[in-house]
Amino acid sequence: MSHTSESILAVGSIAFDSIQTPAGKAEKVLGGSVNYFSIAASFYAPIQVLGVVGEDFPSSHLKWLSERNVDTSGVQVVPGKTFHWAGSYDTNLNEAKTLSTALNVFEHFDPKLSPKHQDASYVFLANIDPVLQTSVLDQVKHPKLVACDSMNYWISSKLDALKKTLKRVDILSINEGEAFLLSGEKNLTKASKIIREMGPSVVIIKRGEYGAMLFTQTGVFLAPAFPVELVKDPTGAGDSFAGAFMGSLAAAGASRDMAKQDPAKWESILRKAVLAGCVMASFTVEDFSFQRLARLEASELAARQKLLLAMIQV
Amino acid sequence: MSHTSESILAVGSIAFDSIQTPAGKAEKVLGGSVNYFSIAASFYAPIQVLGVVGEDFPSSHLKWLSERNVDTSGVQVVPGKTFHWAGSYDTNLNEAKTLSTALNVFEHFDPKLSPKHQDASYVFLANIDPVLQTSVLDQVKHPKLVACDSMNYWISSKLDALKKTLKRVDILSINEGEAFLLSGEKNLTKASKIIREMGPSVVIIKRGEYGAMLFTQTGVFLAPAFPVELVKDPTGAGDSFAGAFMGSLAAAGASRDMAKQDPAKWESILRKAVLAGCVMASFTVEDFSFQRLARLEASELAARQKLLLAMIQV
Repeated sequence: MSHTSESILAVGSIAFDSIQTPAGKAEKVLGGSVNYFSIAASFYAPIQVLGVVGEDFPSSHLKWLSERNVDTSGVQVVPGKTFHWAGSYDTNLNEAKTLSTALNVFEHFDPKLSPKHQDASYVFLANIDPVLQTSVLDQVKHPKLVACDSMNYWISSKLDALKKTLKRVDILSINEGEAFLLSGEKNLTKASKIIREMGPSVVIIKRGEYGAMLFTQTGVFLAPAFPVELVKDPTGAGDSFAGAFMGSLAAAGASRDMAKQDPAKWESILRKAVLAGCVMASFTVEDFSFQRLARLEASELAARQKLLLAMIQV
Repeated sequence: MSHTSESILAVGSIAFDSIQTPAGKAEKVLGGSVNYFSIAASFYAPIQVLGVVGEDFPSSHLKWLSERNVDTSGVQVVPGKTFHWAGSYDTNLNEAKTLSTALNVFEHFDPKLSPKHQDASYVFLANIDPVLQTSVLDQVKHPKLVACDSMNYWISSKLDALKKTLKRVDILSINEGEAFLLSGEKNLTKASKIIREMGPSVVIIKRGEYGAMLFTQTGVFLAPAFPVELVKDPTGAGDSFAGAFMGSLAAAGASRDMAKQDPAKWESILRKAVLAGCVMASFTVEDFSFQRLARLEASELAARQKLLLAMIQV
């Protein structure tokens, strides 16, 4: 954990999740992309969260977040109910099936940035309407590095808006199926090439239990997932991956200028950050909701990072 | 390529294959586990093949093999037709669907070893009846290292015989689904632990386009597949993986004694051999049958090995 790192501004959903997996079920537990992102990133750097919750949301959770390096002043609490997602996973744990989505207060979410938010160095735009992603970017004054996520829904329904966002983004992290849909290519090497031409100089393709692929100006990095004994709940794996990844970049002082001035250092920092993401995701899936991350110790994190490094060393 | 390496004795099928994949089809082309194994291994070490073909088999192919470091004196040519397998792959290229199997002369295959065969240092038992695998082992005098493959069919129908083989084997290479079936465990970490208790101190789990996992006394090595632009035909990927793997071990002078005397060296040699396997398999799938391997140059092989190493370097 680095307390001298500059802060990461993250925008996305905060939600109640109801989840069924082969390992069990969880009713109305805390979830949401930016929730997972923040908890994961807070192991590395200070976070500022932008989000919205209803009056039914437990203030104790916001308090808990703020006690761990997360500035929750950007979380709006408004009349109404919090976003509620219900989903299930069958034995293919890499893909969630959405059972229901109640956007509730999230439907009218319109992120407004305070002066402090506007000064953020690092920006992560979680999977939300690309119009909102662009609106957040419009309000940040001098970001050093911007990353974003997206999903099939936006690729299909708001492709033009998404493409506008992508033009201003340094790093895109998406999953395999989304990369195919966005690029129109069924091969990841070709798909990443096409996506990189849309704007992001760095593309990360998340492949669930098979790890992640990093595509940059330098080449390809193949990162394996850390093999866990039992995957209880894959929810949040991708967002906590992104959190540790961005946190690791912020802690290392990465920036888009570094990419130009010192490509070797940039590549090395990116690769380490991807592995940090893989390790964080491996903890996330070991329990429902963010329960495993809540009890994760920095020493466990460091030990598993060392172990994953040993597992790829030739 | 090392011409001073001790030779590898390999037993398995030599076949005609008829294959359909999303990229096209091939009628009655040359295939068979030990055919792919030998071609791949011949880049690294001398091979002696044990197999059987019918009178319809082109002698030109045996001649071609013998011109590239493969001793085919152990290939019996008997009256009747050569083994013919027909299979197809849908978009999930990791799994073949068998359309028909005509064992033909392979049905009565009974490998008899010449004195030269009996002196082999390295033995690879491709996916054949475990009773035959054991019979071959009975005839080899002082093997330094024995590896084998198997498949669902033998795990289901001849488990006791397979377990007898496994007790005498140093290395087992199987795919993910086979590891689940053999161990009764749906988790690869647990599955490999159970399989290692059956005999092989080294277990390699092949995961198609997702690479391979190596489980040893030292720990786990996660090897990615080399990302190829277009997979035309996955047939032979596993067998050519095994060929390059065993060839690489033979070229490095590996042995089961080394595992005890110098575990660090053993582990390092194994990891490099797994990567050699991944690289060879990536060439195999780029064209139908063994067409890509037939035109593969040692310089291309070396270049891709270097590239794959760069793709996993942190």
